Amino acid sequence: MRLVQKYGGTSMNGPERIRKTADIIEASWREGVETAVVVSAMSGETNRLHKLAHDLCEQPFPRELDALLATGEQASAALLCIELRRRGVAAYSYTGMQAGLRTDGSHFRARIRDLESERLGLHLVQGEVPVLTGFQGVDESGNITTLGRGGSDTSAVALAIALKADVCDIYTDVDGIYTTDPRIAPGARKIDSISYEEMLEFASLGAKVLQTRCVELAMRYTMPIHLRSSFDNVPGTMVTVEDTSMERADITGVAYNRDEAKITLVGIPDQPGIASSVFGPVAAAGINVDVIVQNVSEDGLTDITFTVPRSDYTAAMHIVHEISQQVRARKIGGDDNIAKVSIIGVGMRTHAGVAKHMFEVLSKEGINIQMITTSEIKISVVIEEKYVELAVRALHQAFGLDVDSERGEEQSARNNTLQ
Amino acid sequence: MRLVQKYGGTSMNGPERIRKTADIIEASWREGVETAVVVSAMSGETNRLHKLAHDLCEQPFPRELDALLATGEQASAALLCIELRRRGVAAYSYTGMQAGLRTDGSHFRARIRDLESERLGLHLVQGEVPVLTGFQGVDESGNITTLGRGGSDTSAVALAIALKADVCDIYTDVDGIYTTDPRIAPGARKIDSISYEEMLEFASLGAKVLQTRCVELAMRYTMPIHLRSSFDNVPGTMVTVEDTSMERADITGVAYNRDEAKITLVGIPDQPGIASSVFGPVAAAGINVDVIVQNVSEDGLTDITFTVPRSDYTAAMHIVHEISQQVRARKIGGDDNIAKVSIIGVGMRTHAGVAKHMFEVLSKEGINIQMITTSEIKISVVIEEKYVELAVRALHQAFGLDVDSERGEEQSARNNTLQ
Repeated sequence: MRLVQKYGGTSMNGPERIRKTADIIEASWREGVETAVVVSAMSGETNRLHKLAHDLCEQPFPRELDALLATGEQASAALLCIELRRRGVAAYSYTGMQAGLRTDGSHFRARIRDLESERLGLHLVQGEVPVLTGFQGVDESGNITTLGRGGSDTSAVALAIALKADVCDIYTDVDGIYTTDPRIAPGARKIDSISYEEMLEFASLGAKVLQTRCVELAMRYTMPIHLRSSFDNVPGTMVTVEDTSMERADITGVAYNRDEAKITLVGIPDQPGIASSVFGPVAAAGINVDVIVQNVSEDGLTDITFTVPRSDYTAAMHIVHEISQQVRARKIGGDDNIAKVSIIGVGMRTHAGVAKHMFEVLSKEGINIQMITTSEIKISVVIEEKYVELAVRALHQAFGLDVDSERGEEQSARNNTLQ
Repeated sequence: MRLVQKYGGTSMNGPERIRKTADIIEASWREGVETAVVVSAMSGETNRLHKLAHDLCEQPFPRELDALLATGEQASAALLCIELRRRGVAAYSYTGMQAGLRTDGSHFRARIRDLESERLGLHLVQGEVPVLTGFQGVDESGNITTLGRGGSDTSAVALAIALKADVCDIYTDVDGIYTTDPRIAPGARKIDSISYEEMLEFASLGAKVLQTRCVELAMRYTMPIHLRSSFDNVPGTMVTVEDTSMERADITGVAYNRDEAKITLVGIPDQPGIASSVFGPVAAAGINVDVIVQNVSEDGLTDITFTVPRSDYTAAMHIVHEISQQVRARKIGGDDNIAKVSIIGVGMRTHAGVAKHMFEVLSKEGINIQMITTSEIKISVVIEEKYVELAVRALHQAFGLDVDSERGEEQSARNNTLQ
């Protein structure tokens, strides 16, 4: 058995937390499991370093800010090894540079190219514990780079792949992925197992537990991720290939995203090139467009509606007004008082009527649907923001996801068996 | 003109100090001087890191403590580069590992073996400013090492040698080496120029401005060190080869050391092997013996007196009592109420009568001399501790070192010419 365990900032936060983290690693190691570790900086440390840099300068030079930030993980890796050594565990810290974790040269958002696994693998074979700094690497010219948001998780998956580990355990302060936000739907349940594709939909919809890039990397190499809590020693959520042996429920969960605003161009000519005239300038301004809906044409005219992050709403409206003459729009409308609610599940591929069921549920609650988009494993609707909680709760119950629903109890029983 | 400038912790301590440091570097760079920089960790940072480690463990594992400590310089180098970049100076930070500063594998006290100068030299030729982390390197196996006390100064001299710099400027919070401690002798003067040999005597006698190893390295490669203040832009003390063109004074300065205790073995047989029987066990206990005096033998018996650091006095006495029977000592005496006062100067090689003059001065003040040792450029006496200030002041004046003495004024005039 060979594991990579990744610990986030809260697991490194002071001697007491470091000891608890070392407890888990030591237990794994004493069971004879080959255990490699990836760590983040202590929580707050990255902010502290950012502040030191920004006390000097508004826009610190990227190469040097990366060199500064990289010290955070180097310190926590060394501290964890000091604690492991105290217990007689032969631990060795590695910076991204020492481990030969090579990236491209994009500071703050470098992408991993390669990871020399030989030296770290040798430690495992010798019964030792290598501890790699997450979040950082080194580019072709030997400059220190950082991987950006979710970088440490991505480092962990990359290490797991390089070491051919059986699974990549990602320890965090939540105990797994839930069928929906428990703050909204008290009946929300922890999901035992979720496919990469479903996880990607969850991640991109604001369930910010695992970053998209980390899941994508795991999916490409079929590396199972076990997302679990560092506070409780219970199984969390396994992110893995689709489990075809189980009778799958229609949907796995309900996600929502309040960070949306919509813009509509009314009555523009339905002709080639119009879409790119609209979205070219928006993309050039660095604004991510999420949902795009174009209705069928009437009298040679059509409407295009799209959504953007709420913080980009004003900028996007400004751009759209600038191009409105060029695309001959009759009218421009906008609304930043919306939200997106989605149901997700690989099961819906084979179960007909999921969409119809979803729309009925919302209609019964008196919720008007403004936009609809679908993928193979997801249906999203845009609705007025004030209905978000109502919509999430109604859908969660209607699709049998609540803990107290019949199917929910069945699943709970299965949970216990797996444990 | 090619310079290495080294800045200590106080020069890195917060945005204001970092800006002042950048001022000096920028000025040098704008004058067209090829300028490479070596930095220490922010003051207090190394202690903070030590504390983090010792909160976990009394004796942190050396490899990991070094990896932890090395983050201090990495952070300050990056911060300095961020400030330099803000000003348009093309600065690049380098860790010991990035710079290829290779050491042996002794953690906490690694010795420099080699420094790849190619990449850093290229920066200089291109009008850029490389900033190297002091105090750290990497051993043959790629483990991070630290150089121990005075390590950053040693890094700076090593870099100056590798880059064939004209001089190594060491910026600190004092403005140079003084003829003696100004707190004791108000007439103490800053020394313009001092030889490596004299500096070594000063360093080993408790004038802890430059560590012995750093001066030794500079001497071996004849690299001039300019010890100067980062607070005032005035020349400090140049440590260099002996200046034979100048009429040298007999002595350059008066040093003292209170951290001494003496132990005497009385009436031991004057026969081969006795010395090693005494000093073998003392050395094995890790105790540094400083002065050793053995008097001429009478009736086949002799006395041996030696000094040790005061903190090792009890341990050393314990060892000596244990071996007293074996060496057949008639009596053992000890005193930790002593101090050592020394006069230092390459001039005394050619000037006769320096020792006699020294003993007369002390005698005139009623100070009894307990032990005497001499080297080519130094005479040390051990006296009762309470006489230290008196002895230092008397010698400083008697050898014409006081500012208000005739020779002093002459030297002051020369100082001004040099400035």
